[in-house]
Amino acid sequence: VRRTAVIDMGSNSFRLVVYGWEPGRCWQHVDEIREAVRVSAGMSETGTIKPSRVKRAVQTAVVFSSFCRHAGIDEVIPVATSAIRDADNQAEVLELMREHAGLDVRVLSTDDETRYGYLAIANTTSLVDGWGLDMGGGSVQLMRIEDRVLHESGSWPLGAVRVSEEFLPDEDASPKQIKALRKHVAKIVGECDWMPAGDGGSFAGIGGTVRNLAAAAQKRAGHPDTNGVQGFKLTREALEDLIEELASMPVSKRANVPGIKPDRGDVILGGALVLAAVMESAGFEAVETTEAGLREGVFFERFLDDRDPPLFDDVREAAVSNLALRYQDDMAHPHHVEKLSLELFDGLRAAGLADSVNGPDRELLQAACMLHDIGTAIDYDDHHKHSRYLILHGGLPGFSPREMELIALIARYHRKGEPDASELGPLARKKDDARLTLLSAIIRLAEQFERSRDQAIAAVHVEASNGTVTLATDAVGEGAPVAIWSARRNADLLERAIGRKVEVSGPDG
Amino acid sequence: VRRTAVIDMGSNSFRLVVYGWEPGRCWQHVDEIREAVRVSAGMSETGTIKPSRVKRAVQTAVVFSSFCRHAGIDEVIPVATSAIRDADNQAEVLELMREHAGLDVRVLSTDDETRYGYLAIANTTSLVDGWGLDMGGGSVQLMRIEDRVLHESGSWPLGAVRVSEEFLPDEDASPKQIKALRKHVAKIVGECDWMPAGDGGSFAGIGGTVRNLAAAAQKRAGHPDTNGVQGFKLTREALEDLIEELASMPVSKRANVPGIKPDRGDVILGGALVLAAVMESAGFEAVETTEAGLREGVFFERFLDDRDPPLFDDVREAAVSNLALRYQDDMAHPHHVEKLSLELFDGLRAAGLADSVNGPDRELLQAACMLHDIGTAIDYDDHHKHSRYLILHGGLPGFSPREMELIALIARYHRKGEPDASELGPLARKKDDARLTLLSAIIRLAEQFERSRDQAIAAVHVEASNGTVTLATDAVGEGAPVAIWSARRNADLLERAIGRKVEVSGPDG
Repeated sequence: VRRTAVIDMGSNSFRLVVYGWEPGRCWQHVDEIREAVRVSAGMSETGTIKPSRVKRAVQTAVVFSSFCRHAGIDEVIPVATSAIRDADNQAEVLELMREHAGLDVRVLSTDDETRYGYLAIANTTSLVDGWGLDMGGGSVQLMRIEDRVLHESGSWPLGAVRVSEEFLPDEDASPKQIKALRKHVAKIVGECDWMPAGDGGSFAGIGGTVRNLAAAAQKRAGHPDTNGVQGFKLTREALEDLIEELASMPVSKRANVPGIKPDRGDVILGGALVLAAVMESAGFEAVETTEAGLREGVFFERFLDDRDPPLFDDVREAAVSNLALRYQDDMAHPHHVEKLSLELFDGLRAAGLADSVNGPDRELLQAACMLHDIGTAIDYDDHHKHSRYLILHGGLPGFSPREMELIALIARYHRKGEPDASELGPLARKKDDARLTLLSAIIRLAEQFERSRDQAIAAVHVEASNGTVTLATDAVGEGAPVAIWSARRNADLLERAIGRKVEVSGPDG
Repeated sequence: VRRTAVIDMGSNSFRLVVYGWEPGRCWQHVDEIREAVRVSAGMSETGTIKPSRVKRAVQTAVVFSSFCRHAGIDEVIPVATSAIRDADNQAEVLELMREHAGLDVRVLSTDDETRYGYLAIANTTSLVDGWGLDMGGGSVQLMRIEDRVLHESGSWPLGAVRVSEEFLPDEDASPKQIKALRKHVAKIVGECDWMPAGDGGSFAGIGGTVRNLAAAAQKRAGHPDTNGVQGFKLTREALEDLIEELASMPVSKRANVPGIKPDRGDVILGGALVLAAVMESAGFEAVETTEAGLREGVFFERFLDDRDPPLFDDVREAAVSNLALRYQDDMAHPHHVEKLSLELFDGLRAAGLADSVNGPDRELLQAACMLHDIGTAIDYDDHHKHSRYLILHGGLPGFSPREMELIALIARYHRKGEPDASELGPLARKKDDARLTLLSAIIRLAEQFERSRDQAIAAVHVEASNGTVTLATDAVGEGAPVAIWSARRNADLLERAIGRKVEVSGPDG
């Protein structure tokens, strides 16, 4: 396992993030240190980073660099963004970091920053064709993405800190001030010829402000946040509700809204208004959020350095494969469970016996098959429950929180237990009990067919006639008789799911 | 990682258990298949395994063997116990297994079985000097263990199945039958000259019946069972309560008692009575239980094959180290957090500022230090919560459930959050809030001192005077100023825990 540290020297804080990865295989966020260095403090007047901030910045660079030497880091990628980029004394600061910390800091241009934001969006959301937004403290980047490639982008001075200072300087925000800010944003977006003129499309957003707003809406809706806001869609309606709440309180209280971090309370309303105005002007119904950002963009360029642009072929497939390979060496078993599950799924659908599931459920079933055993990394006992925990907390970029929960539950019920869709809580939908029962019944049978891990049952065919369903097997291995015998003992869930008697045919046990 | 499969061909079921391990480092139970082969069915009349059971046994051996070839197993250790040992057609059965499955099965003698049970007890419980019990279906083994070495042992036909058939043949158990069984057991134990004559001592028990009884008592008490019955002490009082409940219902209902497995309902009362009579006769107040058994005994002989007897030096230390090494390569950081934490703990105790903790808490703090970061294996975000999950579910043999929960909670609070002893639920004791707050405050400070992972703060000394506590540091690394600065920002929890102002001295940040 290689360990790559990305050091992000931002205006407000410096952050070191460590990614553990195996080339071409899997990656993971394994470590982090953050220091609130605030290099930009007081910079707006002088254009220069103050001596006390330079000292703190260099000390922090020394700590990060020492951390890297002692924590087995193979490679360090230090980058600096707007504050250092714009500082008059940039050269001095960089030289001190080189001298004391041995760090050769790369100062990112605005275009570089946009590109890394784009890579974060294109590699961790479901966006294929649409628009992206990256909101920082000073500026907002907008992007037009076509077939996952960045086609247009621009940067405007609409960052959360900037607009809050300029448009909402008082303890309370007046309706007039709010209106002025919205109008200002709408005008800018309206003038951008590659943004939609109210007819909408797919939209994804990154940056701490967007994440905080999504977290606040998620909490309001009572949704679980086991994997943060990954894949959550913040609707315009939910955002407007939040704005109404935030605008009704003085600035000093806004950080108390659940989901909003203490150090963002003073700028969250400004950020929310910018986001809402962009969405209204363009006609976006919702913004898809992700836990990824600039640092992941930088890391993806390294991890996928054999590709240009450095993109996963398919975000969801990459996410499932990443999680599967993180905990499993041998994929023959999960792949075969997947094959047999899909044969059952497709066969039952063709026989008209699977009305409770649809096309998209097929992909969830596939993902659950790949991940059903990862919990054994914790312990064999209750490994189905551990698989659920690892799926929910490891995260699956590209899937919605509801989809992640469904995948986790199918994996949870691959061995035993009575599938219970009420565990989806507020993410549950109509027919979920039937859906979850059928998908769990399928994976459970496939698992029994594969219990000797030797692909003894090469294939399974669904044959329906006279009220009975026969699962005919191509039995090629010595383990087949016991596999078939086990499958017979575990067919009851499928019988209940489809309301038919199920017979398993094959060499007798 | 090596993978060793132990195949246990028992009277009732065949079980294949896979252990993943790194020599001299760590081990884990990673996979398992079980088949209810019931080779002993009908054997009591003929002394011979029936043809239908021979066929099933050989088929199961074929499946297990195929599993081993396909699941990357490096080494297979197949052993057979009483049914095959006692069968007239043992040779035929073994030859068929050799021919069809390629398995060279080792038939264990009664002494071998006792020894593996002993190894399971000596390596996974807190028993040092005392007695052990291994209850099977046919027989019960008793052992006298001195300084963790097996000194005496014997086997009696008091297994749960045997005594149930002999003494409790009816649907309902009469007080007279119950009394007769107890008397029978008491007589046998009374005649054994190396068993205590009512004056008690430490006692540990293994076998499915004991585990089921412990699980039932655990559920009754509302205790968590995240790691099964590992380390749970089943008291005589709780056991007698259970017996009263079981005896009040017909045999067909006994499997409905939560904690009792369906296939044990018919023998559980018999087993409970034998255990109770042994405890009463010897004067044991409680029996310590473990998730380990024969199979782990067989595995330990392999894992610790450079030792005779194959014992860990210290069960608790081995458990902590096993879990720490399973998820971490570099132990320099956890070890240094441990060192600094103990310096704080000892210093505060010496200054009379740590009345809420005692000697045994020191060991829990140590364990938490070794394990505080293991959650990063799941994800860096919320890794303190993941550490807790991995500790509770990975298990720590040798510690009680309460101790495991405390270790998990100290690890949980090493970064942030308000320590809350109510999370201990029914395992909470008086002063636990103060205890948990102080221990969390200590590890949190040690973690800050070690934030650059470079042992920049070599040592810390507690100096108390005039109502203020000063933490004086031996700062040797470049990272020291920031570490000290961070420690200062995280001293509030300690201030609350000891009710004093805390100052951190060292090079200024």
